[in-house]
Amino acid sequence: MSKGALALLISGGTENWAPLRWRVRFLRVCPGRPVALIPVDAVDAASVRYAAVWKPKPGALSDFPNLEVIFNLGAGVDAVISDLTLPPVPLVRVAVGDLTGRMTEYVVMHVLMHHRRQGYYAESQRAKVWAPKLQWAASDLRVGIMGLGVLGRDCAEVLARIGFDVAGWSGTWKSIPGIKCFAGEGQLGDFLARTDVLVCLLPLTAQTRGILSRRTFAKLARDGKLGGPVIINAGRGGLQVEDDILSALDDGTLLAATLDVFATEPLPPDSPFWSHPRVTLSPHNAADTDPDAISLYVAEQIARHERGEPLQNVVDRAAGY
Amino acid sequence: MSKGALALLISGGTENWAPLRWRVRFLRVCPGRPVALIPVDAVDAASVRYAAVWKPKPGALSDFPNLEVIFNLGAGVDAVISDLTLPPVPLVRVAVGDLTGRMTEYVVMHVLMHHRRQGYYAESQRAKVWAPKLQWAASDLRVGIMGLGVLGRDCAEVLARIGFDVAGWSGTWKSIPGIKCFAGEGQLGDFLARTDVLVCLLPLTAQTRGILSRRTFAKLARDGKLGGPVIINAGRGGLQVEDDILSALDDGTLLAATLDVFATEPLPPDSPFWSHPRVTLSPHNAADTDPDAISLYVAEQIARHERGEPLQNVVDRAAGY
Repeated sequence: MSKGALALLISGGTENWAPLRWRVRFLRVCPGRPVALIPVDAVDAASVRYAAVWKPKPGALSDFPNLEVIFNLGAGVDAVISDLTLPPVPLVRVAVGDLTGRMTEYVVMHVLMHHRRQGYYAESQRAKVWAPKLQWAASDLRVGIMGLGVLGRDCAEVLARIGFDVAGWSGTWKSIPGIKCFAGEGQLGDFLARTDVLVCLLPLTAQTRGILSRRTFAKLARDGKLGGPVIINAGRGGLQVEDDILSALDDGTLLAATLDVFATEPLPPDSPFWSHPRVTLSPHNAADTDPDAISLYVAEQIARHERGEPLQNVVDRAAGY
Repeated sequence: MSKGALALLISGGTENWAPLRWRVRFLRVCPGRPVALIPVDAVDAASVRYAAVWKPKPGALSDFPNLEVIFNLGAGVDAVISDLTLPPVPLVRVAVGDLTGRMTEYVVMHVLMHHRRQGYYAESQRAKVWAPKLQWAASDLRVGIMGLGVLGRDCAEVLARIGFDVAGWSGTWKSIPGIKCFAGEGQLGDFLARTDVLVCLLPLTAQTRGILSRRTFAKLARDGKLGGPVIINAGRGGLQVEDDILSALDDGTLLAATLDVFATEPLPPDSPFWSHPRVTLSPHNAADTDPDAISLYVAEQIARHERGEPLQNVVDRAAGY
């Protein structure tokens, strides 16, 4: 019996998302299985049983009548599930340990850079000025993490180990040892009121879209060591109201912002974020997973499925993540 | 019976070392005890039983015939024990949890900034270029920590928790779960050969002076992910041969250096370190301890001593730390 084909529907143009490289990776980890890069390769649509996708064109998956599983090659599934024509088969989110560790690295580094005033010291070096400032302890800084899934939980644990005063907020209540946990709309105000540095790792859903708004920023603590609240968004661009971030930075509602994600990516050259003195930005690479780990994960899930075992990390489409 | 006086012999000019502020702090935590700032305050030399010092003038402590304990207001005691006229009473090194946590923050932040290519992304932001690069996992980076005292051990543990491949080296062999430990001159070469990022937290002794030299740099791994070895010195300026660092950066023996300490501090305005494109420097503030925590620690040690309990963290003058 021949193995069902795997169709790759991959868009995006950065070095590590180059579609041709994905074909090579999947051929390596799926020996004996046809792998077709759509629309480059010819394939018998009826033979396709699996699809591995990254931001596929809406409707593109309807071409395969015998599709059994769709794999999303990243943690965020908002782009895929917004396609109303998506076939009603299991949608699996790639969840590799690798991705969790990378997000923690990014968040810990940027929290530390704010805490330790790295911007001030870099500027002092440029100006050749030796001017140490009194440094507060990590326990004096209140970090608040929105989103307590696998990523948020790991970030919270490492930040707490370093000594920060860490709280978390999530849609449904979670319990994490050593972390003050808040949940739901009703506790959002209390969570924000004790937060100096807000880290956003929420999934993008109808409930969370635009949650990083003036209304939220205005509720953050204003009596903290940094001299004003800071946000770090490493979730999704759709979580932030970009005009609100800019006006909040300009009128002092926010002290600074670190942004890895944007409404439009790549960020257009005329965006004011590029040159804003209190914005640190990165090109959506906080948790770029090792492509080899992703393709191996997909191959392992296909093997589980074909042995009759349940798929892991199946997305709850109603919840949106 | 009146309490023995505490003499403060404090030099240094940064904001948090201002001697007058130290008098206020010690008066607050030593109720009923005379506290004299030398040479500002008049004091009966025979009444002085304790001295709290930071880089005192050589010979200055000989003035007090009834001295019982000297407290060094920092982790590094090299400046004090190089004074051959130092009275032979116990020398106590301030060791507060605070200082350990701050050093870990500094080291973790700078290791992450090298690992995550923060310099490249900051430059990309300035140039308004969206150009993510493929990111290796933390486990692909070999961090080597020289000095496995309280500070080195805590740094090693947090870096390992984040996922780095961590090893440590120390004068005498230590065992730390999850960390590959090397010791002594005989194992230094093996330790350096597996190290991409060298973090130096050694005490400054006759054995360690100038250890960060071309001879050491040449033994570091050259096949790592960063494209060349990196050093981070947050120990003492005397550990580094500054001309060697500059020439090693210029001929590619080192890729980059992060320096918190220097042979001459403040770093002179004409030092080439300020503007070297691959040097990140900070004004000896990696682990500036909260002065309140330091003065409280001294007050607690005096109380222990007067209750007849042994002093903690007494320096081994022969070992030099």
